[in-house]
Amino acid sequence: MSKDEKAITGRDESYSDWYIDIVRKAGLADYSAVKGCMVIKPYGFAIWENMQRQLDKMFKDTGHVNAYFPLFIPKSFLSKEADHVEGFAKECAVVTHHRLMNNPDGSGVVVDPSAKLEEELIVRPTSETIIWNTYRDWIQSYRDLPLLINQWANVVRWEMRTRLFLRTAEFLWQEGHTAHATKQEAIDEAKLMLDIYAQFAEEWMAMPVVKGVKTANERFAGADDTYTIEALMQDGKALQSGTSHFLGQNFAKAFDVKFQDNNNKEQYVWATSWGVSTRLMGGLIMTHSDDKGLVLPPKLAPIQVVIVPIPKPNGLINEAADKIIADLKAKGITVKADMDKKKSPGFKFAEYELQGIPVRIGIGKRDLENGTVELARRDTLEKMNVPVEGIADYIENLLVEIQDNLFNRARTYRDETTTSVDTFEEFKQVLDEKGGFVSAHWDGTTETEKKIKELTQATIRCIPIGNPQEEGKCILTGEPSKERVLFAKAY
Amino acid sequence: MSKDEKAITGRDESYSDWYIDIVRKAGLADYSAVKGCMVIKPYGFAIWENMQRQLDKMFKDTGHVNAYFPLFIPKSFLSKEADHVEGFAKECAVVTHHRLMNNPDGSGVVVDPSAKLEEELIVRPTSETIIWNTYRDWIQSYRDLPLLINQWANVVRWEMRTRLFLRTAEFLWQEGHTAHATKQEAIDEAKLMLDIYAQFAEEWMAMPVVKGVKTANERFAGADDTYTIEALMQDGKALQSGTSHFLGQNFAKAFDVKFQDNNNKEQYVWATSWGVSTRLMGGLIMTHSDDKGLVLPPKLAPIQVVIVPIPKPNGLINEAADKIIADLKAKGITVKADMDKKKSPGFKFAEYELQGIPVRIGIGKRDLENGTVELARRDTLEKMNVPVEGIADYIENLLVEIQDNLFNRARTYRDETTTSVDTFEEFKQVLDEKGGFVSAHWDGTTETEKKIKELTQATIRCIPIGNPQEEGKCILTGEPSKERVLFAKAY
Repeated sequence: MSKDEKAITGRDESYSDWYIDIVRKAGLADYSAVKGCMVIKPYGFAIWENMQRQLDKMFKDTGHVNAYFPLFIPKSFLSKEADHVEGFAKECAVVTHHRLMNNPDGSGVVVDPSAKLEEELIVRPTSETIIWNTYRDWIQSYRDLPLLINQWANVVRWEMRTRLFLRTAEFLWQEGHTAHATKQEAIDEAKLMLDIYAQFAEEWMAMPVVKGVKTANERFAGADDTYTIEALMQDGKALQSGTSHFLGQNFAKAFDVKFQDNNNKEQYVWATSWGVSTRLMGGLIMTHSDDKGLVLPPKLAPIQVVIVPIPKPNGLINEAADKIIADLKAKGITVKADMDKKKSPGFKFAEYELQGIPVRIGIGKRDLENGTVELARRDTLEKMNVPVEGIADYIENLLVEIQDNLFNRARTYRDETTTSVDTFEEFKQVLDEKGGFVSAHWDGTTETEKKIKELTQATIRCIPIGNPQEEGKCILTGEPSKERVLFAKAY
Repeated sequence: MSKDEKAITGRDESYSDWYIDIVRKAGLADYSAVKGCMVIKPYGFAIWENMQRQLDKMFKDTGHVNAYFPLFIPKSFLSKEADHVEGFAKECAVVTHHRLMNNPDGSGVVVDPSAKLEEELIVRPTSETIIWNTYRDWIQSYRDLPLLINQWANVVRWEMRTRLFLRTAEFLWQEGHTAHATKQEAIDEAKLMLDIYAQFAEEWMAMPVVKGVKTANERFAGADDTYTIEALMQDGKALQSGTSHFLGQNFAKAFDVKFQDNNNKEQYVWATSWGVSTRLMGGLIMTHSDDKGLVLPPKLAPIQVVIVPIPKPNGLINEAADKIIADLKAKGITVKADMDKKKSPGFKFAEYELQGIPVRIGIGKRDLENGTVELARRDTLEKMNVPVEGIADYIENLLVEIQDNLFNRARTYRDETTTSVDTFEEFKQVLDEKGGFVSAHWDGTTETEKKIKELTQATIRCIPIGNPQEEGKCILTGEPSKERVLFAKAY
């Protein structure tokens, strides 16, 4: 493939083209023949696997277990919780038949009208209903609680406007569904999972997030409270990156899930659900990448170090490379050597910059004679000559430094792009000229929230957790307010 | 739950009830509200995760990478390969609409007739078609080959008669789809993956298998050759446990996937696909379990050792347990201690036998005074007193011994239940009275194969790889035959 085919649109030119170029040209994902559905390519999937592995560990370390529930949800189940069906009915893939047949006119294969299902099945957009219908059989007594279950699954929401990773008709995610004896325990669980999401986002993705609670208008369909982590992308738009819901007894009541408490009294069960999805891939890309391509935090990079011979492999270079590879592998650092003789070093440099590999080692004959190699950092694009002696230790530390630098750089950007305003004029001006999070007073009504969205496209991303209480006046209505909330335009 | 609720049907009484009892009562899986779809419960899923982890490692160690392709397949894609659509059209879940709406009569939610899809989408029964449609964009030159891609996914085949794990409408599996420049390379790949499946079955599941090739009649729809591993269950029925297909150029031709070879000549790409599924769980259960419940090979057991205080926990017992737990964990052995004071040791013994935990340690005060504990092996149900000193080493060896014993026991059974016959009378008699594999001559025609199935329900499971060549006469027609094939009744 020529260099031009790999060239990506600049962020200034078109941020959305830049994003799609990176996703496609770095080999992360692509559109498929099925409208709105993506193909996750091997390199993109390897990053997602790294995310999964760490999240799964964090879930298990906090007592959760995995299970698997059916892909299909009977239509009547979806209808049992009123808000829930309202939230999902308009974007459902509906299975109506279970057989194809040869068209009697010989023109190919058609749906067999005699194989119509008695009740339509919905491809799960989320699994609260099928899971709570199952929990009814699993929960009788307080001794059966808590149930702390997660599933890794594909879900389908028939979106009209899609964008790779950020919004697709089918996506991959995990959905936790827990059942508890008390309200407080369920709230604690919802908050614990929010903390785990925030920790994962910050420590692994190097993506700073604001933890907060959603307004009633932005809640998950069927939740009493929705907690969220909100990140800020480089174009000043927010990305809702993970949510954790306190579901109250809504699904327990809809599916009649009761338990005998330790006083032999029958009670409805309390619930949470929480999820993150392949959308995180979009957040990862948009938080760190630049006009040369993807930038990956070392903790999630499938390949952390790439070795490129300069200009070509030879005996001496190969020998040095083998030694470095062995030393890096011994430290658990993933490394690839590109010994292709047909491609120039410059071509390879561009290729691995596009792929976001955190550290590149260039090994040249002259440097080797001086006992050094050339290291290049993907985050800063800095190059440095480093002694071969002790290079594995050096790189081990460098990977930590890159991980930290990516986080700090993103946090600085986020902090600098968060603005407090006190008037609606300022509010509009900041949104138009600077973007980012805007911290402002709001009168607490859904009406005002909707009006502000209508006028500015900005939504309330969250009411931050631990928000300082402060007297103020709603930027739109002037009504009294006790705290600021965080607005932004969002993906 | 009382002991009676946990009691399982004896194998002699009803083998199929015994199987379902184990699956449900050991907490592996259960039926769901959706016809033919199962819920995989946490304990069952933990076993499946162990299988996945090992298989995934074996795939990656042989150069394969994971990716993800859409759940939905446009109806027209399925039709492009004639044999393929013939094989799958009758068991397809078909999505016809993408929206629900409130019923105008107020009676609930109905399919919105205005949201009919232009082309129906099939929930993937297998992904050859959508993947080869994608490969067309990925493959231009011999330099793009081989493509060695696997995906872990759910698939749906609308089966009328289902049985937990063995045959369900939705199941979980992995499907490898590889693309090659030459026929030989594709055949080698299909055989390599068969070897990996066999190695996994024997070394991890402790389930002996026969490797072989399917007859034309039993081939995968769209394959030129189907390789299979066939295991023998305790009721004398065979279980096809994994298949690997040499697909020739069938899908490349159907989806127009060509490449330029190194002579600049355009050629169609050669293909393989291969898969194992949650059906393996059924094989695992039926190979080893007994009338007390599940028996798990140590390499796949989520909990390898359980500690039960006799009769109840106390300071001395807890201290001894903690020490043993620490020593076992240091060796990477998974261990659980059941310190529940309300349940009797006998109750716990039955519970963990039901769950198939390979080793039980009973810690009692008197034994401790003698410096010993009581070990019980799940495979043989033997009990033995063992010194506490060095117990972790002892158990480490014991787990290896149990793994070996399970495999050897199953192999002995398989060998003893494989019979060579030379007449059709013998053939029928063995099938009726003894069951198992029956090795017999066959004239090589599909007609005879179908006739034998009609008369006896037995099918040709495979033509074993490395089969000795031997002159003989077909048991049904008396026509000449060059080798024996393996018949059995099968799941």
